[in-house]
Amino acid sequence: MDLPPDLIEERLAHWPVARLATVAGDGRPHQVPIVFARARGRLWSPIDGKPKRGGELARVRDLRARPVASLLLDHYDEDWSALWWIRVEATAEVVQPALRERSTVEAALAALEAKYPQYDSVPLLRDDATLLAFAPTRIQSWAASG
Amino acid sequence: MDLPPDLIEERLAHWPVARLATVAGDGRPHQVPIVFARARGRLWSPIDGKPKRGGELARVRDLRARPVASLLLDHYDEDWSALWWIRVEATAEVVQPALRERSTVEAALAALEAKYPQYDSVPLLRDDATLLAFAPTRIQSWAASG
Repeated sequence: MDLPPDLIEERLAHWPVARLATVAGDGRPHQVPIVFARARGRLWSPIDGKPKRGGELARVRDLRARPVASLLLDHYDEDWSALWWIRVEATAEVVQPALRERSTVEAALAALEAKYPQYDSVPLLRDDATLLAFAPTRIQSWAASG
Repeated sequence: MDLPPDLIEERLAHWPVARLATVAGDGRPHQVPIVFARARGRLWSPIDGKPKRGGELARVRDLRARPVASLLLDHYDEDWSALWWIRVEATAEVVQPALRERSTVEAALAALEAKYPQYDSVPLLRDDATLLAFAPTRIQSWAASG
């Protein structure tokens, strides 16, 4: 069965992790866990500016070339009657904060800082940092029981 | 940093859930949480035969058309130093148990039953059931700390 709409809203606001899927240039699916927060109708995920092995992250490269994404929120439980998931199909944008309207960037960063107290001690965005912005185009859900 | 190889092996054997990503016919990524077990060098995920809304499941339709998959095992924790993930790129096969060598199917089903005590009370495969078989082609991992 579907999750009730208010529960979907609550989990999109508060669930701490999503799994992001993109499609690579060779047509293969690519996945990574992400943190995210909602602001201005989009889901925002930060990529800090520290150097990565192998240059630009696969998720960024994928989304520049093919700006479609899946975000999966779900809960696994040994009690299978407690299973649920929320699947968000979205169009994606790779945002360079320095090049974007300041109020939008500030809203995204404020939402991330409000959701994750970890950013009190971990830098949210360093030099050359990037934000991924996901605009939902379809939201589906499933729950094993009510 | 990478996870140590023995820990990757241990988690591929015992971690209870993976997120499966496939690529749909329209080129969009698709995700769903799955249970899985290892047998004969492959990861097996069952799809029971109960009727689905809208006919064949998206993951089955996707994998018939484009037999490449990503399986993501990961752990989210409020303590970000405890984060890790294992990403398995795989070629996929949609297996109809009735049409496949019996010993292979029995090995897959035995591995699923041994891993998930839930199958004592939930039917593992009903009529027209399907197995997804994933042959890993690349395994990557990441851990926030050692």
